[in-house]
Amino acid sequence: MRVGFIGLGVMGRPMAANLARAGHRMSVYARRSEAARPLVEAGAGLCASPAEVAVAAEVVFTMVTAGADVEEIAFGEHGLVRGARPGMVLVDSSTIAPEDARRIAVRLAGHGVEMLDAPVSGGSRGASDASLAIMVGGRAEVLARVRPLLGSIGRTIVHVGPSGAGQVAKACNQMIMVACIEAVAEAMLLARASGVRCDRVRQALSGGSAASRVLDFFGAKMAERDFLAGVQARLHHKDFGILMREAIGLGVALPVVAEVWQQLNALMAHGWGGEDTSNLLRVLETLRPRTS
Amino acid sequence: MRVGFIGLGVMGRPMAANLARAGHRMSVYARRSEAARPLVEAGAGLCASPAEVAVAAEVVFTMVTAGADVEEIAFGEHGLVRGARPGMVLVDSSTIAPEDARRIAVRLAGHGVEMLDAPVSGGSRGASDASLAIMVGGRAEVLARVRPLLGSIGRTIVHVGPSGAGQVAKACNQMIMVACIEAVAEAMLLARASGVRCDRVRQALSGGSAASRVLDFFGAKMAERDFLAGVQARLHHKDFGILMREAIGLGVALPVVAEVWQQLNALMAHGWGGEDTSNLLRVLETLRPRTS
Repeated sequence: MRVGFIGLGVMGRPMAANLARAGHRMSVYARRSEAARPLVEAGAGLCASPAEVAVAAEVVFTMVTAGADVEEIAFGEHGLVRGARPGMVLVDSSTIAPEDARRIAVRLAGHGVEMLDAPVSGGSRGASDASLAIMVGGRAEVLARVRPLLGSIGRTIVHVGPSGAGQVAKACNQMIMVACIEAVAEAMLLARASGVRCDRVRQALSGGSAASRVLDFFGAKMAERDFLAGVQARLHHKDFGILMREAIGLGVALPVVAEVWQQLNALMAHGWGGEDTSNLLRVLETLRPRTS
Repeated sequence: MRVGFIGLGVMGRPMAANLARAGHRMSVYARRSEAARPLVEAGAGLCASPAEVAVAAEVVFTMVTAGADVEEIAFGEHGLVRGARPGMVLVDSSTIAPEDARRIAVRLAGHGVEMLDAPVSGGSRGASDASLAIMVGGRAEVLARVRPLLGSIGRTIVHVGPSGAGQVAKACNQMIMVACIEAVAEAMLLARASGVRCDRVRQALSGGSAASRVLDFFGAKMAERDFLAGVQARLHHKDFGILMREAIGLGVALPVVAEVWQQLNALMAHGWGGEDTSNLLRVLETLRPRTS
């Protein structure tokens, strides 16, 4: 299939590489064209704009930071709709607000372009080894057409519901994941204050009811005091801004998630946004009086 | 080995049954003697007091609710120390305060009795199929002596540290587990308010970074609106009382855990303490304005 990919960052690059490996003819665009180099060297066509990608491809993936980025890619001066033929599919794997996803989908439909929101979970490792969980919102017939492509980049593909539903699921994913990171951080703080080794606690808990990917991965980072980035904390902070606005719009109170958001705000204020979210432990430690 | 078991509730009974199945000569005591009937019918000796259990056994397990219960079993009028020979080991699998565990261990040592704190995680299912995670505090030599017994009731056995360290690990386990239940409840609330099906969200997330035993188990209960008890919420509420007192004593601030505690308080106030902790979702729903 002729596939386009726009947004070749930490997540997008390995996802595009997996699509290329599956034998699809790739056309790529990145604002910083050097980000595209490894893919171009592997045979992908380099495009000068999203419009050019749309001319070359039947299905175009986007993996960027914000709703405004997706909007610009779709409808900007050299946007997708300038080159798209009717029936083209945009698969947006970015994490953006559900309402943005719905609005962009409706506007694209006016140009005969189908859109799926298809955000992913699993981090850069999941992107590299094609084991991502993909949460899809949009029409089932459109998903059926692109499912083989999704199968090249992820392992779990679930049709959550209509347009926007994939982004709702992703918001749920981020709420649960980061709340769990914070809970692990609070547990590690208590353990250390009690004079108990964090690595032993993590090991003891990994067989029980509190077992999770977060405990395995972030618990290990905290126990080893490795605070450098897997996924940068500023991206989780961005996600919480999106989902708290969503919650306010819907009129739902999320007491724990709101508190986690404040902890992420504190993390940002400390200047740790470019590092890992395991820095939530260091935020808690700033509240502890020093002992001699 | 001659093994005693005191406290034959939802957790204790299947644990004692697994020890009996492993071929150990069991002596049991329960305040309500009918709780002991299935074990007695399977060949266990029924004792009239903890002191009698101590006379009959080299290693005695306790699985009760509170630190005061363990204290009464050990030092009460017909307590263990009245019947114990030097070298007897008390393995306390109850969830109690670390400081209670330490104090009881020191006092038992004065009678020549060894004590391990060995709280467990994995719920009644883990107790039945001998897959519990066991978090042990106390002396390594004592653990080495009873490790074969622990192997009959659990799968993960970790020596966390000295006396009390097992209870610290259990406190960490409860913090993470219940915080995660609350986060799943908040996610389900957001999904439903967005018109998205909770079961699909749960399914979509189960392959990603938010994957956990809590999401699988409690997420399914919430999606099916099955709020009846696995483990009663009042026991989690009790555990949070213990660990918040511990945190206050240590001078550590636990912002998310404190908020979860408040949600558990609200759950208790609604009269749902005898049901499952998935009722945290219903607590959140009481804050939502009704829509027509």
